[in-house]
Amino acid sequence: MSFSSPFTPSTPEELEQAGRDLHTLAERLYPIPRSITGAGVRETLRILRETVPIELHEVPSGTPVLDWTVPPEWTLRAAWIKDPEGRTVVDVSDHTLHVLGYSAPFHGTVPLTELREHLFSLPDQPDRIPYRTSYYAETWGFCLRHRTLESLPEGDYEVFVDTTLDPGGSLTYGELVIPGASDREVLVSTHVCHPSLANDNLSGLVVAAGLGRRLLEAAPLRYTYRLLFIPGTIGSITWLAGNGEAASRMAHGLVAANLGDPGGFHYKRSRRGMAEIDRAVEHLLRHPAVDAGPAEPFEIEDFVPFGYDERQYCSPGFDLPVGSLTRTPWGRYPEYHTSGDDLDLVQPEKLAGSLALYLRVMALLEGNRTYRNLNPKGEPQLGRRGLYGAIGGGTEGKERQLALLWVLNLSDGDHSLLDIAERAGAPFERVREAADSLLAAELLEPVDLVGP
Amino acid sequence: MSFSSPFTPSTPEELEQAGRDLHTLAERLYPIPRSITGAGVRETLRILRETVPIELHEVPSGTPVLDWTVPPEWTLRAAWIKDPEGRTVVDVSDHTLHVLGYSAPFHGTVPLTELREHLFSLPDQPDRIPYRTSYYAETWGFCLRHRTLESLPEGDYEVFVDTTLDPGGSLTYGELVIPGASDREVLVSTHVCHPSLANDNLSGLVVAAGLGRRLLEAAPLRYTYRLLFIPGTIGSITWLAGNGEAASRMAHGLVAANLGDPGGFHYKRSRRGMAEIDRAVEHLLRHPAVDAGPAEPFEIEDFVPFGYDERQYCSPGFDLPVGSLTRTPWGRYPEYHTSGDDLDLVQPEKLAGSLALYLRVMALLEGNRTYRNLNPKGEPQLGRRGLYGAIGGGTEGKERQLALLWVLNLSDGDHSLLDIAERAGAPFERVREAADSLLAAELLEPVDLVGP
Amino acid sequence: MSFSSPFTPSTPEELEQAGRDLHTLAERLYPIPRSITGAGVRETLRILRETVPIELHEVPSGTPVLDWTVPPEWTLRAAWIKDPEGRTVVDVSDHTLHVLGYSAPFHGTVPLTELREHLFSLPDQPDRIPYRTSYYAETWGFCLRHRTLESLPEGDYEVFVDTTLDPGGSLTYGELVIPGASDREVLVSTHVCHPSLANDNLSGLVVAAGLGRRLLEAAPLRYTYRLLFIPGTIGSITWLAGNGEAASRMAHGLVAANLGDPGGFHYKRSRRGMAEIDRAVEHLLRHPAVDAGPAEPFEIEDFVPFGYDERQYCSPGFDLPVGSLTRTPWGRYPEYHTSGDDLDLVQPEKLAGSLALYLRVMALLEGNRTYRNLNPKGEPQLGRRGLYGAIGGGTEGKERQLALLWVLNLSDGDHSLLDIAERAGAPFERVREAADSLLAAELLEPVDLVGP
Repeated sequence: MSFSSPFTPSTPEELEQAGRDLHTLAERLYPIPRSITGAGVRETLRILRETVPIELHEVPSGTPVLDWTVPPEWTLRAAWIKDPEGRTVVDVSDHTLHVLGYSAPFHGTVPLTELREHLFSLPDQPDRIPYRTSYYAETWGFCLRHRTLESLPEGDYEVFVDTTLDPGGSLTYGELVIPGASDREVLVSTHVCHPSLANDNLSGLVVAAGLGRRLLEAAPLRYTYRLLFIPGTIGSITWLAGNGEAASRMAHGLVAANLGDPGGFHYKRSRRGMAEIDRAVEHLLRHPAVDAGPAEPFEIEDFVPFGYDERQYCSPGFDLPVGSLTRTPWGRYPEYHTSGDDLDLVQPEKLAGSLALYLRVMALLEGNRTYRNLNPKGEPQLGRRGLYGAIGGGTEGKERQLALLWVLNLSDGDHSLLDIAERAGAPFERVREAADSLLAAELLEPVDLVGP
Repeated sequence: MSFSSPFTPSTPEELEQAGRDLHTLAERLYPIPRSITGAGVRETLRILRETVPIELHEVPSGTPVLDWTVPPEWTLRAAWIKDPEGRTVVDVSDHTLHVLGYSAPFHGTVPLTELREHLFSLPDQPDRIPYRTSYYAETWGFCLRHRTLESLPEGDYEVFVDTTLDPGGSLTYGELVIPGASDREVLVSTHVCHPSLANDNLSGLVVAAGLGRRLLEAAPLRYTYRLLFIPGTIGSITWLAGNGEAASRMAHGLVAANLGDPGGFHYKRSRRGMAEIDRAVEHLLRHPAVDAGPAEPFEIEDFVPFGYDERQYCSPGFDLPVGSLTRTPWGRYPEYHTSGDDLDLVQPEKLAGSLALYLRVMALLEGNRTYRNLNPKGEPQLGRRGLYGAIGGGTEGKERQLALLWVLNLSDGDHSLLDIAERAGAPFERVREAADSLLAAELLEPVDLVGP
Repeated sequence: MSFSSPFTPSTPEELEQAGRDLHTLAERLYPIPRSITGAGVRETLRILRETVPIELHEVPSGTPVLDWTVPPEWTLRAAWIKDPEGRTVVDVSDHTLHVLGYSAPFHGTVPLTELREHLFSLPDQPDRIPYRTSYYAETWGFCLRHRTLESLPEGDYEVFVDTTLDPGGSLTYGELVIPGASDREVLVSTHVCHPSLANDNLSGLVVAAGLGRRLLEAAPLRYTYRLLFIPGTIGSITWLAGNGEAASRMAHGLVAANLGDPGGFHYKRSRRGMAEIDRAVEHLLRHPAVDAGPAEPFEIEDFVPFGYDERQYCSPGFDLPVGSLTRTPWGRYPEYHTSGDDLDLVQPEKLAGSLALYLRVMALLEGNRTYRNLNPKGEPQLGRRGLYGAIGGGTEGKERQLALLWVLNLSDGDHSLLDIAERAGAPFERVREAADSLLAAELLEPVDLVGP
């Protein structure tokens, strides 16, 4: 009956090591050319499988998925431009961002004026390559530094885009399911479709993988956990199309991305706005871990139907309690969707801090039970049970004692421990600890239905 | 199925012309001596009939109406005072305000000390004639400039109040009903009982008449509209006494008055406080029309059981969703209920702005439908339907695209377009436009019961 | 049917006299050594019986009460310490605080080092004796000025604690029940267990006694009133253990303490937070009595499961609507639980002001009825009934008239007069007065179930 967090808190040294490991993993994944389909996604998932046993799913191109259709599989072999002198001026082998994502094959010689219609650059950030795609309108193109674009002389350019769009291919996604005592699920979804962009979203991939490993080590768990490594938009739509039953068992969920940059945390609420996951994340951001360093800054934002895959999970036909927990959100840092989003932007200690917060969220969800005070009339005599006398005169002791009284007072079957923590203005972990003491003294019984 | 506002937005030139027309109409009505009954009301309504086909109702004096009784009909032929030298010092033919409203007939000679008990003036505004009435306590009196009052020499004064209070007369009110697809009604009620006071309430009369004309031109309409031109208090009580069935079909209502002064807008909520009319007016005041000039200042006030006829519509036995939309409210401008409330206080462009706001309110009520997203699972692929690609990169386009996503996300049958506009922080018109595009793409169906 | 407050408002002179009387009573009670059981409580209650007919209850030691057991009865005959020279350095006959409450008997000679473990002092307030007890862990001890403690020379001390802890004794509490028309009850609970501490809680005892006398004089009453004079914690637990049926009839309650210090008022809400008692007290604090002097400052605090006996009344198995209305709360004034909490700290005019506020609370509870407007359609014609004409032009009159309109508008059977006062932003007494006028005019009927 007594509860203990499934996750041993990490020491500062362990956290430091975890950050370094996650960054090393991101370094391996960085050069792989990824898109919403294709070999790059498969290779990425195979590398992540070294950390956690992700299962790979292949959904054939052409499969109808909700209002969409799985696109042909894209294979990129080479893509370059040679100038009138025959010198290679852009080559995807230098940087995966150089080719417009999902470019159709092309080989020919075109004058600069025509070529320009297929080139994308950032006049404001002339030394960075932008990230552009054209998944659903068939065309070809290149992304390049504006400085390179401006240096191109007039003349005829040889263009070679060696790609295929295979209608007999498939869309690949990865899934890790960690069964718990209940079939109600916690979802963590992260997008795997971006090429060499480190914060968006190698950071999400490695933090999710790290989280998966800790969850596997932490079993037995109360909830079943489902980690999805999917291409953005079409991936969540594909998963939802085929997993309506699992979706209906979803109790809480987070979309993970942008978790390595130096910014503070950002939480975007689910469409429901006050779901348990929304309250849990906000509570933990407001109440830093008891023995952690200084609190990180954070922002809370209401749901908007724009962003990452929460758009799909929170569409009205599903309306799942899925928020998005990131550091700096998409579009709000200058390196976003440019070659500036590289391995330097992503910091090991920020990856580690993100993993630690995700673990706190999972620990809260695991431990957020609802109890009934078995001695509800008047206060039980705590002194007789060693729960009062044991407590010294310090402030620490006073907070512990008050947490006992709050749990007793509000454990009427209607208040979860998170409700009590919010009402008491105390960190969840303190209230959870008090409930453990009261459970040991047989003063509480659980009344909720989820979990052991 | 597709929606278009019943009201073509006016050009600035049309609005300017409308303001001039309304002011010209007010000029014609200004000199007519009006009261809660009598010939002045009839003449006023006959002039308004040149603009809109108001139906005149006559309710016999003595008719019991709720807790009240229709009073005798008052006729004013003449009223003057001559000083001891025989000079006329006060004469109602100079200004309709000079006689105490509903004065009983009197002819006699009285010393100044006795006369003074029947004289009303404003020591603080010595050059203005006050407006006073005594509908339910039979007496006679005069209102005059304080400067005149102070100049009166001692002596005997001849007083002539040539009025009748006819128990065989009637109370007159005007009514314009514009049928719509639904028998649920929108009420606009304005008081017709004040003599030569321009803002209170010729402004209300001419704006209501202008609104009526635009509603007639705008048919077919979703709601049935009912415009009442009634004497204050006793008029609404009389109408409510005889029209309980129509009152029960009232969906939204506004009391119109004080709509021409240079002040900003003022909205007093209905007793319900959060009725659709309350939310509609507040939304439009907070979100100025997209292509309009600078926003006008405004104030929102909770219901108080004092003011104009909303007191009666919002009495607990009816509790109708009727607010009051004015410019400067009663009692809060110095010219209120004095001869200073004249045709100069009322400005053509303010009358036009008031009419434009009333039209926006009606357009919102007409267009505030509730829909169900027919493709609620995941986002529909908007690009395939030309709703995404058509959208350029500008900010304008982004707002349009976001409005589409908001309507799709919240059209679950529980949120009206006004709910969605409020949640999205966008002007209603923008959300209505998005819903029109989605209706055209057959992505929505209406689920509400009112209207076509 | 018509209502009049059961309590005639006091004149300033009467209030002044009441304050002096309450202080005189506190002076008589001050020297009596009280604890949670024993002769001191009995003597205190016998003196209070001169003011109000409190009934004394004796509950035998050893009786199980909820999760607790009534302790042995403590009798203190003498307690002193003699220094190595035989001089008496601490003697409970000098001050009742000198002995640790519930000290077990002891007689012996101990060296200073051992004695020190039994001595309690306040290094921060070296001239004050602290108040300490050890009810449930058997030991002995003394409380003394830190200055005295520091002056004690090394050597052997003779200690004599002449007490008994009698398992054949009893716990004493006092109860005053004043029957009203309804068996639904109002509780005022105050703790009687503190020795010579004046604010905490002779102030509570004398204000409760004064309140009881006024309630007795005010009969007939709507509610039944129950005043409890009980030892803290074990007293309320004992009462609740034996009076579950009375507890279930509790409609409103207050814990009274700390009512004589110069601080402003402090209200701690009941666990329910928005019970009628919570709203009543907060309303009265925000709206000072109409003819009273300047408003006293006040603070409102949410329930916390710590403090006085509200902890027991608000435990989840009872969840009674009991708040705590004090001046400066426990622990927030420097004299708290020291010999500095003496008769100088408690001021006659503060006692009187506290009594006056408690009387206003009771008058509000008595008068907070819910009515139905018998003429709910439109406004009734108040002029015809002398309720409009009687009203002059002054501001006072306007407020009275508006109160009439508010009561009529909101008396739909769903709003109590307190609801109406809150909505109107008017003092309860003004709204109650309006309801009296409307009852006299037969425009209202009561719809609530409590009371005549």
